[in-house]
Amino acid sequence: MLTVNRLSHADALILIRGAREKAREIGVPMCISIVDESGNLIAFERMDGGKVTSITISADKAYTAAAARKATHDYNAVNVPGNLAFGIHTEVGGRISSVGGGLPVSVNGEVVGGIGLSSGTPAQDMECAEAGIAHFYSTLE
Amino acid sequence: MLTVNRLSHADALILIRGAREKAREIGVPMCISIVDESGNLIAFERMDGGKVTSITISADKAYTAAAARKATHDYNAVNVPGNLAFGIHTEVGGRISSVGGGLPVSVNGEVVGGIGLSSGTPAQDMECAEAGIAHFYSTLE
Amino acid sequence: MLTVNRLSHADALILIRGAREKAREIGVPMCISIVDESGNLIAFERMDGGKVTSITISADKAYTAAAARKATHDYNAVNVPGNLAFGIHTEVGGRISSVGGGLPVSVNGEVVGGIGLSSGTPAQDMECAEAGIAHFYSTLE
Amino acid sequence: MLTVNRLSHADALILIRGAREKAREIGVPMCISIVDESGNLIAFERMDGGKVTSITISADKAYTAAAARKATHDYNAVNVPGNLAFGIHTEVGGRISSVGGGLPVSVNGEVVGGIGLSSGTPAQDMECAEAGIAHFYSTLE
Repeated sequence: MLTVNRLSHADALILIRGAREKAREIGVPMCISIVDESGNLIAFERMDGGKVTSITISADKAYTAAAARKATHDYNAVNVPGNLAFGIHTEVGGRISSVGGGLPVSVNGEVVGGIGLSSGTPAQDMECAEAGIAHFYSTLE
Repeated sequence: MLTVNRLSHADALILIRGAREKAREIGVPMCISIVDESGNLIAFERMDGGKVTSITISADKAYTAAAARKATHDYNAVNVPGNLAFGIHTEVGGRISSVGGGLPVSVNGEVVGGIGLSSGTPAQDMECAEAGIAHFYSTLE
Repeated sequence: MLTVNRLSHADALILIRGAREKAREIGVPMCISIVDESGNLIAFERMDGGKVTSITISADKAYTAAAARKATHDYNAVNVPGNLAFGIHTEVGGRISSVGGGLPVSVNGEVVGGIGLSSGTPAQDMECAEAGIAHFYSTLE
Repeated sequence: MLTVNRLSHADALILIRGAREKAREIGVPMCISIVDESGNLIAFERMDGGKVTSITISADKAYTAAAARKATHDYNAVNVPGNLAFGIHTEVGGRISSVGGGLPVSVNGEVVGGIGLSSGTPAQDMECAEAGIAHFYSTLE
């Protein structure tokens, strides 16, 4: 039997709060998805004005980051023609995302979930995802 | 009527064993898929710690290698903009994989199945897939 | 943070062994899928002669049983016209199965995974799934 | 290693010819799909006037009949509320068909492929599928 740690719903709300605050600060309403370590959705928020397409995109970014234990911008870096990982973004029915904005959430060196942001530029999405994690870590101290 | 040779379940377990041993040796828990010559799954193993995303990715690599009778890294080589094969990875509902780690399994010059590895880098996935086939061949001698 | 228990790969092989023995006993080669508590595949075996359609069906039965924490034959019982659960089998892209042969695997009252059998009649599939779990429990004692 | 027998392309054309003749005789232009023993398409014909929806339906009927080694009308008989197989038609992404018109093709007691007809009533589809197989058998003698 294996024992696995994962984000609780309360943890997910903390992550969303941190991401939402940054989204408000930069003036871009976002879709924010939080998944567990298996990539399954725990919480989702579409801020008023968040894009409809970003509902799925944010969830796929979070899924990729958690279930593959890799930031989506790291997949972006290797998803270039000629690299042996090229084409990874169409795998799993296209759910593997190589667009910046998905980050794994780790505690004590173990991936316990993922966060995915979408509606801004990839750089804005990444900034808000990082803010969510930073806020989450601040509550663990 | 045609007569076709394909891997048995016992053959599949031998392929998995060879791939698993290499995965352990390099310290990367893997997802390992073995398919028959038509691309249909015979056996699958997610080593403890293998990635959830790699369940499907390993199966799709094996499917591509067996059913198209081509290593996924060979598709990778031609899946570059400007090449007439560019975009092949989105075909068949995205099941065609151009990420290294899928190899056809041939006996007497005939493709009898495929092996797909996922969870490491493409180079690591390829190394373990090759180890699976090498172990399988060693049992045929 | 939540802590979750799930089947290991070694546990999955024990479940498969128990189901396979029963399948051999009744003379019906089966497809056998074992998933973790989130519904993700850990191990799969297509016995020589198992049906190709049963690859996906066994996996979906195991997925349903584990992720919904309900035997597929229990969904079958309520999936009748007029019952408020009618139509449940087309949900989640059709992955929810209401065909007998999928059982949750519980340890200490907690669902830690699922087993799905397919290739026989639903009654045969159920018998083999139960045999897998019985064998697994016998190794825990 | 396993050895499997399957329909050749020449066999598939014979099956189509028999089905087409019956379709002309009853005055219903049909879609006719022939698959191998793994359920993969070997030959397809849409007679002038065949329905567009029947392209996929005939292929799914043939797939079901060959890969599950069962006539689709036999699935129809058990796909009734209260039966433990109820809901089978939505499995494998909805490709399992319980509509009459798909038949396995057997030689020497072994399923070597499948035939699927669509565009008429299920009874007409079944009649034409049977005619295809009868014609195929007549050429084996």
